[in-house]
Amino acid sequence: MRTVTKDTITQAFLDYCGAETDPRLRFVLEKFVTHLHDFVRETNLTHAEWRKGLELIEKAGDITTPERNEFVLMSDVLGLSSLVDMVNSPDEGTPSSVLGPFHILGAPDLPVGGDMKQDNEGAAVIVSGKVCDPEGAPIKGAEIEVWQTADNGLYSNQDNSQAEYNLRCHLVLGDDGIYKLSTIRPAPYTVPDDGPVGELLHATGRHPWRPSHLHFIITAPGYRSLVTEVFPSDDPYLDEDAVFGVRERLVMEYVEQSDVIAIPDGMEIAERLQAPFFTVDFDFVLTEEKA
Amino acid sequence: MRTVTKDTITQAFLDYCGAETDPRLRFVLEKFVTHLHDFVRETNLTHAEWRKGLELIEKAGDITTPERNEFVLMSDVLGLSSLVDMVNSPDEGTPSSVLGPFHILGAPDLPVGGDMKQDNEGAAVIVSGKVCDPEGAPIKGAEIEVWQTADNGLYSNQDNSQAEYNLRCHLVLGDDGIYKLSTIRPAPYTVPDDGPVGELLHATGRHPWRPSHLHFIITAPGYRSLVTEVFPSDDPYLDEDAVFGVRERLVMEYVEQSDVIAIPDGMEIAERLQAPFFTVDFDFVLTEEKA
Repeated sequence: MRTVTKDTITQAFLDYCGAETDPRLRFVLEKFVTHLHDFVRETNLTHAEWRKGLELIEKAGDITTPERNEFVLMSDVLGLSSLVDMVNSPDEGTPSSVLGPFHILGAPDLPVGGDMKQDNEGAAVIVSGKVCDPEGAPIKGAEIEVWQTADNGLYSNQDNSQAEYNLRCHLVLGDDGIYKLSTIRPAPYTVPDDGPVGELLHATGRHPWRPSHLHFIITAPGYRSLVTEVFPSDDPYLDEDAVFGVRERLVMEYVEQSDVIAIPDGMEIAERLQAPFFTVDFDFVLTEEKA
Repeated sequence: MRTVTKDTITQAFLDYCGAETDPRLRFVLEKFVTHLHDFVRETNLTHAEWRKGLELIEKAGDITTPERNEFVLMSDVLGLSSLVDMVNSPDEGTPSSVLGPFHILGAPDLPVGGDMKQDNEGAAVIVSGKVCDPEGAPIKGAEIEVWQTADNGLYSNQDNSQAEYNLRCHLVLGDDGIYKLSTIRPAPYTVPDDGPVGELLHATGRHPWRPSHLHFIITAPGYRSLVTEVFPSDDPYLDEDAVFGVRERLVMEYVEQSDVIAIPDGMEIAERLQAPFFTVDFDFVLTEEKA
């Protein structure tokens, strides 16, 4: 190893990995280190650039808290998170999309048809649909987690004026796979751009806007868990999402309703909704978990 | 962008970069993101692996302090730091080697011939040589920074029992380019392996040892600054340095001396050295800074 050169160092790294290395770990590391080393060789990366990169990562570490994960955000704006979603998304079924940095555990239970809107300001929306298999049959035992921004474009964990679990809920569905809840239209928002991710965005002339969306996690026994987002078809940022999360099949129409009759049966919120309000209908198609 | 796929996302990223993007930044980002995306596509990286990677980075952030930079260490054990050194090292001149995570600013001045050993235990060594250009002519105005481990294998900023700047110094050289100082033999040591870097080393059956070495930074007006390390030729870890820092031309012989006459003129320490002790002679060859 005392004769390591820029052309032999990648093999030297691989030779260091002992026989006890897990084969998958070895494969992933081989690809990772080969690409990392090729990147340095192809760019002749300078010490100043290496330090700048480390400095960005250190700043990301400094700014990361349980409420704000700058590393996830960096992964998002580089397209890494979306790409991991895409290489793991089966061709059939509803596409996945980024989890994002604002998910928190412990969202409160809401009955199907329940009201997540509560006292939040904003245009009222009734979201409904079903969780089904690729043939359209309802899936039993499905659960849904939902979270979104308030009308000011902030999630509850970014905004002290909101209750801890504002606009977050967890639904346990019946055997019919039907979900419905009332909420507000989510607002477009900017990803935090006051840290190293913002530095990267500004340096490359990128804006930090994401199109408005609802986040969902859908689980059911025997099926692949689905982490996804759905977007209103009239959002101005659909074609320039800062985190590459939009998929054509995740864009859905918000239908403006002026008649109270459009409210589905069994909605808690019915008596409190004032026209105009919106309805949006969207089915989640899960695929079977591979053995 | 609402039709982004795993095959188009890399181009989508590049298309986001505006015309105002600095051309070098654009080039570096293009290479970085292309390699990062290819890595994900070639490995079909799973969400669990992506989360594991992020978790390692987050842990590195948690453990990083002004005294311990786990990100630099991660770069070191992946061979990234050494590779950056190598692609930036001119073919002539003394090779560079890794800065490492233990350098601190503000090392105290020591006159040429001064005693850095002080009361440190360990085998005494007189280190001397000159700073010269590729033709062997002394370079005027050179300065040297030196740092190393104590006999217990720890740097002063890892070890509360040492004074803040123990075994660290800064020499301003005369027009003859000569440096000399007395110190102790540095000890082999392990890089910290109680954090995420250790997790990686253990998972791949790697040990955390580095061969013993002295760290140097050499600067002189009009010349490329040199960050390097020099290694004793009898160190047992020369062929398996955890951070890929050894270069054949940085390995030097420690000559055991039994006669006090081997102490060069003008050494502060002469009267306090007890035989046996070592001498090591090593010239640093700097190359001119490109315009």
